[in-house]
Amino acid sequence: MYCSQVHMSSLALTLSLSLSLSSKVEMEVLVTELLKDYHFGQQQLIEIWGHACAVAITKAYPLSSLSKKQPTVLVICGPEQNGSIGLVCARHLRIFEYEPTIYYPKRSPHSLHQDFTIQCEKMDIPFLSYLPTEVQLINDAYNLVIDSILGPETDLQDVKEPYSGILATLKQVKIPIASVDVPSGWDSDEASTDGINPEVLISLMAPKKCATSFSGKHFLAGRFLPYDMQKKYELNLPEFPGTECFIEL
Amino acid sequence: MYCSQVHMSSLALTLSLSLSLSSKVEMEVLVTELLKDYHFGQQQLIEIWGHACAVAITKAYPLSSLSKKQPTVLVICGPEQNGSIGLVCARHLRIFEYEPTIYYPKRSPHSLHQDFTIQCEKMDIPFLSYLPTEVQLINDAYNLVIDSILGPETDLQDVKEPYSGILATLKQVKIPIASVDVPSGWDSDEASTDGINPEVLISLMAPKKCATSFSGKHFLAGRFLPYDMQKKYELNLPEFPGTECFIEL
Repeated sequence: MYCSQVHMSSLALTLSLSLSLSSKVEMEVLVTELLKDYHFGQQQLIEIWGHACAVAITKAYPLSSLSKKQPTVLVICGPEQNGSIGLVCARHLRIFEYEPTIYYPKRSPHSLHQDFTIQCEKMDIPFLSYLPTEVQLINDAYNLVIDSILGPETDLQDVKEPYSGILATLKQVKIPIASVDVPSGWDSDEASTDGINPEVLISLMAPKKCATSFSGKHFLAGRFLPYDMQKKYELNLPEFPGTECFIEL
Repeated sequence: MYCSQVHMSSLALTLSLSLSLSSKVEMEVLVTELLKDYHFGQQQLIEIWGHACAVAITKAYPLSSLSKKQPTVLVICGPEQNGSIGLVCARHLRIFEYEPTIYYPKRSPHSLHQDFTIQCEKMDIPFLSYLPTEVQLINDAYNLVIDSILGPETDLQDVKEPYSGILATLKQVKIPIASVDVPSGWDSDEASTDGINPEVLISLMAPKKCATSFSGKHFLAGRFLPYDMQKKYELNLPEFPGTECFIEL
């Protein structure tokens, strides 16, 4: 416990020296400004984020590094925006020659999200009708799980089935988990002690405060933020190499 | 003249061996299928294409290779979709630390295109109110011109001012021109003999038939086409390296 605390605070120190951590409220204000003042579209942002996540995944888990014979990936998508980012990520992973399978238990009624779903369906990416409760089946079938279930905007008080069951399953899987933006079930603003334990975290635009208690591989993805906004919100982003849409922190 | 004809036909042979060339009608049918059946959004496609163009430009003209002190680029945008792709390209070039200036003489009344314009304006990318008729001013001020004026869908019979004047100016500039999808003023389906003479052509999704008479650096950009569509339209696309969104042909 002592070791882990020391590790956590040294990581927090490293992060705070290099770039800022954003609170849930700050991120909401930032995204609202992108949509209202800069006239970015949600479709456009979700495409940018999902693509960047897929590219980061190829970096964290190159095709050549996968232990299973087939480059299978299970992408679990939540009902809101974070789920749609997962759908876009799955589509680009298919283009990068991975074999994604999607589990999307509660589909969003919004046409924006439905369009992203249809794109995956038309590309013949399989959708699971249920998640096996026998964890060994997941460990055997997939190389990794992409967690695009709950985003930073999720009110954790409201998390019910099927998501509470999915999170319980994810705590038991032995294959690596890569979480999109925040590990599902973690409070975006706080260190987590008993949530799922992803090997990879892909922060979108800026790391959230909960990233201080994350000790795995940490990527920052989505390189499009106007310089004025980076300054205004004091994001202090690192320099992305070349034309890369992500950076390992 | 003899040499140039030999060169053209050997280039055509190389292209036909490696990947197919698409006619204007085929591309229209393909894009309609992407929008209607696959539910891709125009905003999403324009973002993907514009980003891929910007990345291809950084490959063709790396910052370190530019002759002027400032990494200036003039992006000329037409009134339709090709112009919006130019706007997105300019925005990403700004993020990649180029200094784009936009000339967008006739702004589209569609909110989709207007949103892309606002994103550039809010990022403080300068817009020219007119194009200098004195070509030397353009040669002196910019490292290159990005031609995102007229797309393959343009009916060349309808090309009037200000575009005919812009094309006349572009025939005289000495700095390199990079054209998006088709060189403006060229018929998408035919070899051109007297149009503008770009150094770089960035074909989107698949090269158009007019690419047979293009002898400069040729890139294919936009890596997202579902495999079924690639097969159905017999595009025979080359293998993109890694996660790159473009390939040099």
